[in-house]
Amino acid sequence: MSKFWSPIVHQLTPYVPGEQPKINNLIKLNTNENPYGPSPKALTAMEIETGNSLRLYPDPTSTRLVRAVAQYYQLKPKQVFVGNGSDEVLAHTFQALFQHDKPLLFPDITYSFYPVYCKLYGIQAETVPLNSSFEIELGGYLRANGGIIFPNPNAPTGHGTRLDAIEALLRKNPDTVVVVDEAYIDFGGESAVALINQYPNLLVIQTFSKSRSLAGLRVGFAMGDEALIEGLVRVKDSFNSYPLDSIAISGACASIQDKSHFEYTRQRIIASREQLATQLKALGFNIIPSQANFLFVTHPQHDAAKLAGHLRIRNIIVRYFNKPRIDQHLRITIGTDDECKTLVSALTEIIKN
Amino acid sequence: MSKFWSPIVHQLTPYVPGEQPKINNLIKLNTNENPYGPSPKALTAMEIETGNSLRLYPDPTSTRLVRAVAQYYQLKPKQVFVGNGSDEVLAHTFQALFQHDKPLLFPDITYSFYPVYCKLYGIQAETVPLNSSFEIELGGYLRANGGIIFPNPNAPTGHGTRLDAIEALLRKNPDTVVVVDEAYIDFGGESAVALINQYPNLLVIQTFSKSRSLAGLRVGFAMGDEALIEGLVRVKDSFNSYPLDSIAISGACASIQDKSHFEYTRQRIIASREQLATQLKALGFNIIPSQANFLFVTHPQHDAAKLAGHLRIRNIIVRYFNKPRIDQHLRITIGTDDECKTLVSALTEIIKN
Repeated sequence: MSKFWSPIVHQLTPYVPGEQPKINNLIKLNTNENPYGPSPKALTAMEIETGNSLRLYPDPTSTRLVRAVAQYYQLKPKQVFVGNGSDEVLAHTFQALFQHDKPLLFPDITYSFYPVYCKLYGIQAETVPLNSSFEIELGGYLRANGGIIFPNPNAPTGHGTRLDAIEALLRKNPDTVVVVDEAYIDFGGESAVALINQYPNLLVIQTFSKSRSLAGLRVGFAMGDEALIEGLVRVKDSFNSYPLDSIAISGACASIQDKSHFEYTRQRIIASREQLATQLKALGFNIIPSQANFLFVTHPQHDAAKLAGHLRIRNIIVRYFNKPRIDQHLRITIGTDDECKTLVSALTEIIKN
Repeated sequence: MSKFWSPIVHQLTPYVPGEQPKINNLIKLNTNENPYGPSPKALTAMEIETGNSLRLYPDPTSTRLVRAVAQYYQLKPKQVFVGNGSDEVLAHTFQALFQHDKPLLFPDITYSFYPVYCKLYGIQAETVPLNSSFEIELGGYLRANGGIIFPNPNAPTGHGTRLDAIEALLRKNPDTVVVVDEAYIDFGGESAVALINQYPNLLVIQTFSKSRSLAGLRVGFAMGDEALIEGLVRVKDSFNSYPLDSIAISGACASIQDKSHFEYTRQRIIASREQLATQLKALGFNIIPSQANFLFVTHPQHDAAKLAGHLRIRNIIVRYFNKPRIDQHLRITIGTDDECKTLVSALTEIIKN
């Protein structure tokens, strides 16, 4: 507490990201990182960019990257916004599109950064409970609102929402913005990008951190109607002229253009997820069908926090949330097949004893 | 304009950065970039970081970099905050420390991003005019305020404020935060970092973009009392967990540890500045004594906008501001000695005809 702080600062409850411990031989399945490296073409592009030209400011509009994303998704460049990770894109979205006099709606169990942004920007929010199977039911969002946001697939559940349900919501909610946070979409969900040209109230947010394995580079993007993108650009240009550095622009461009590395690694992760789900079911776990690069699991006979503690002793970390409704679940990131094998052996042993 | 925008978006007037044209053989003296490259050790550190570990999130607290800056300035790590360029650090500062019920004070002629942040965060502001020699006179800031910010040296004038004047202001203004924006301090000014342990109301902001030649990498930092830094951390952790990517953290650490490259390049720039000032005076220009890596000049017989236009035809760009009081001035970044020579030849020719 300090007399020098703006009043808002006293009320903030910061987001707490999953830990990033520096431990050798750690099997790190706690922050939904990709077990495979980024595109080798992206690494080469970044190495080329690492030279004396870093003395110059980057392109403030990241035009190359905006065009590359637009081309990939067959959109106009004016329908694309890029930022310093999808967290920054989300922050600008909350400030630019959700500060209205009715409450923002989002699921009760979801990405825990959403309520944090609400406090930062003084946005009132109401949560809509997941159903008893931990699924988003969009019918619950048909009420007065200043905006709607949900991840698809949802985190930490991995559950995907069907595109026809999203389209019905867009149709019935024409006066406020619906943001679909597609951080995990490439692992099996149906992207809402296909609806952008029909619905001016739709914003889709994606990231290079998961399916493109560039969490360490900080690049995210939003796609939607030109007017929504212009709102984001106005806030960005009033906040930081150059949110993306030159290396990130080059790396992300090369990454999105390398379709074969992307396809190969995401298919491997999907295959490993299905195999791991089968093995965990055999151990007695209940598993929500996942369209993401993680599984959300619970065991009827074993306390989740204790399981996480036992795994930790064996140098395996998974994500445990000490929160209502989900305090008997673990969120487990899909690792390499070797990592999954070690995890299953460890859980087999823990459950046996 | 869009019904989907938050009301604030309609009122924003974004900052316009100096242009970054992609023209071959351009002599680019418009955005105060360093004419020499970054530390070769920084480039090597960034190359090492460019690998498969980019699949992992960066350290959310950038601890290595915070410690490296703290060590360099003999501060505690809790007295240091790092961000995605000093523009992001400034944005968080405005939100965390300047949202009070009295007006923020800053010079009438200064970094033109300050009023933009005020609009973004709904901060009322009052400007204090520079004196007739275009100098900041801190006596003018002794009035009711919700905070004070000024660059030292000031931009675009290059004029430096003495440390004893800053200390007097800190003493007489104990109840609100005084931010000294030291983007250009390493080119000859007296840093206020020396006062941090005595004045809990002082925040000093610096950047890797100028004296460390890493504008393309986006790293800035703030230093001050632990309570001020905690205020910034709270806002940052409610905005973006990972504002600095892994490559930027490594590059900036190596950069601040390479004292010899830093000393050598900044001394060359200072020497070039003094030589260029002498040559421009010989051509009849009036020049404000500069402690920065640029000169702010005016010619009694030649219109500034026309001079800038003539230089542009010769592939030399300098910064011209079409604003009250300074519309007869040019801001010229110090380039290499060859670039300065070409500039002086061009101006000699233009003035002769």
